[in-house]
Amino acid sequence: MAEPRISSIDGKLAEEFAVPSHVEEVKEKMAAFASFHAEAGRKVVLITSGGTKVPLESRTVRFLDNFSSGRRGASSAEYFIDSGYAVIFLHRHRSLYPYTRMFLTINMLDALEFQGGGAPGNTGEVVVNQQVLPNIAKVLKRYEEVKESRLLLPIEFNTLSEYLHLLKAAAQALSTIGSKAMFYLAAAVSDFYIPASEMPEHKIQSSNGPLQLSMKMVPKILSPLVKDWAPQAFVISFKLETDASILLDKARRALDTYRHQAVVANVLDSRRGYVVVVTPETQAELILAEEDVKNEVEIEERIVSNLTSAHDNFITQQVA
Amino acid sequence: MAEPRISSIDGKLAEEFAVPSHVEEVKEKMAAFASFHAEAGRKVVLITSGGTKVPLESRTVRFLDNFSSGRRGASSAEYFIDSGYAVIFLHRHRSLYPYTRMFLTINMLDALEFQGGGAPGNTGEVVVNQQVLPNIAKVLKRYEEVKESRLLLPIEFNTLSEYLHLLKAAAQALSTIGSKAMFYLAAAVSDFYIPASEMPEHKIQSSNGPLQLSMKMVPKILSPLVKDWAPQAFVISFKLETDASILLDKARRALDTYRHQAVVANVLDSRRGYVVVVTPETQAELILAEEDVKNEVEIEERIVSNLTSAHDNFITQQVA
Repeated sequence: MAEPRISSIDGKLAEEFAVPSHVEEVKEKMAAFASFHAEAGRKVVLITSGGTKVPLESRTVRFLDNFSSGRRGASSAEYFIDSGYAVIFLHRHRSLYPYTRMFLTINMLDALEFQGGGAPGNTGEVVVNQQVLPNIAKVLKRYEEVKESRLLLPIEFNTLSEYLHLLKAAAQALSTIGSKAMFYLAAAVSDFYIPASEMPEHKIQSSNGPLQLSMKMVPKILSPLVKDWAPQAFVISFKLETDASILLDKARRALDTYRHQAVVANVLDSRRGYVVVVTPETQAELILAEEDVKNEVEIEERIVSNLTSAHDNFITQQVA
Repeated sequence: MAEPRISSIDGKLAEEFAVPSHVEEVKEKMAAFASFHAEAGRKVVLITSGGTKVPLESRTVRFLDNFSSGRRGASSAEYFIDSGYAVIFLHRHRSLYPYTRMFLTINMLDALEFQGGGAPGNTGEVVVNQQVLPNIAKVLKRYEEVKESRLLLPIEFNTLSEYLHLLKAAAQALSTIGSKAMFYLAAAVSDFYIPASEMPEHKIQSSNGPLQLSMKMVPKILSPLVKDWAPQAFVISFKLETDASILLDKARRALDTYRHQAVVANVLDSRRGYVVVVTPETQAELILAEEDVKNEVEIEERIVSNLTSAHDNFITQQVA
C-alpha cells in the first residue's frame, strides 16, 4: 500500500480508457529504437504533440478536442535531431509533422507543374516549382538524411485513451536507457473525459433537447510517469494558459506536485515569441526579438537549446 | 408577424453567433461567381463540407467538434465539376480538398526526389516519384484546367458561427440565380453550442473539479434557408446516424419539417458504400458492389449523378 495513488491511476487507465490493440507492438518498437540509439551514444527524446480527441459517444460522431496545430512539437523535433537526439514523435493523427510542416499553408497542387510546361518538351515529369516552395531542396535533403539514419520514430494517436496508453508504453520502453531519456510533453491533453461505462453508444439526438454533459477529471499521468514508469528520466511538461496572471504560479505548483525537472510555461496569444522555462531552482525567460522574427528564428530552437543543456547537466549529476 | 420562426432565427444568429469580419466581402465574391457562371449557362452548387468547431471558451483552448474528414464533400465537388457545375466549396479549414485529397494518406516528402538522384546528373530539380503517386499527372492536369476555368471557389470556416453566417451569405448570394442553384449540405454541423454571453473568457481550470457543460440547441438554419433566403433553389441535406433503425424515419421527418427537395441518408459505418436518397415521393438506394469497390468507384459519383438529374427535372418544372 506504499503507492496507492499510482496504482489507482494504473487501475483507472485499464478500466476506463480503452487499450489500443497495437500498444504492445508499439512498445517493442519504441524499446528497440531507444536501445539502438542509446548504444550508439545518443540521447532519446519522446515528444508528444497535438491535441487529444475525447469521444462523447462510443460510435463517435461528436468529440471534445484541444486546440493544437502540433507546430511546437513538430519544429522541436527538428531541433532535437539537429542537437544529436533520436526522436520518438507521439503525435495526433494529421497534426503538423517535422519537415513536412512547411506545406501547411499551401495547396500542394499549386506548387507542382509539368516539366517544360504544356510545350512539346514536356517530359511527363511533374516537378516542384521552387519559386512557390523556395526551401524544398534543403528540406527534402534533410528529411532524407534523417530517414536514412532512422533518427525519427513517428507514432500516432487520435483519442485521449490512445494517448494515455501509448505514453505509458513509451515511458516503460524508455526506462531501460535511464537518464538518457527526455520526455517533452507538448501535447494538448484534455483534463476532462467521459468514462466508457457512462458513454451512450449512439449519436446523441438533438430532439432530446439541450445537452447536459458531465465530464470526469482525467487522471494526472505525470505522477506515475515520474515516480514509477521512468523514474530516472529527464521530464519536461508544458503549461498553456490564456490568463498570464496565473501562469507562473501554476507552473511552480506542477513542479511541487509531480517533482519533475522543468515546466515550459506559455500564454496562448504570445506562445510563438515568449515562454518561461521554470525549474525548481531557476526561471528562464526565452524571448524572440523583432530581429529574430524577421530572420525566421523559431522559439523552439531556444527552448530545445535550453533543455538539452539542462539534460546534459542532469545526466552528469546522475553519474557523479 | 407572418414568419416569427424565421425572424427569431435571424435574430439569434445576429445575437449569439459572432459575425465573421469578412462575411460581406465573401458574399460579394460568391454573388459574382454565381452570376458569372449562370450567364455562361452553368448551374452552381454550394457544397458544405467538414465539421464545425464549437468553442467552450472565448479565448479558445477547448472545443466540441463533429467527426468529418471532408471526404464526401471534396470528392462530390470533383463529380459536380465533371457534370458541368460551378462549385462553391464552403469547407472546414484543413479538411479534405478536391484533387488535393489524393495526398491524404502519404507524407508528401516521401513522394518527392531529386531528379537524377544524388548522382552528378542531379539538376537541382525536385520531382514527384510517380511510382509513389501514380495518378499525379492526371490529377494535376485536371486541377489546372479547373483553376484556369475558375469552376471552383473555395471558402473556409472553422467555427460553427463562421459556418452559419457564411451559409446565410451564400444562400443570399445564390438567390439571384433562382432554381439554377443547388445546396449540397454535407458538412457535419453541431446541434449544440454555448452562447457567447455564457462562455467563460479564459481556459476552464481543471482545479475547479469535474466539468458540467450545459449546451443550447443550434437554430435549424435549414428552415430560413429554404423558406426565406433561397426559396427557389434545389436543396439537399444530409442525415448521418449511427443507428440504422431510426435513419429513414428521421430523413422523412426532416423533409416534412423543412420542405426541401431531398435528404441523403447514411449510417456512419457503411457511409462509403451505401446511402439512400430520400425525396417526398421517392427513395433511391445507392450501393457500391464489390466489383465497384475493386474498380475504385466512389459512391459520390452515384450520389451526384442522381442529384444532378433530379436538379434538371426540378429546373424544367419551375420553368413549365
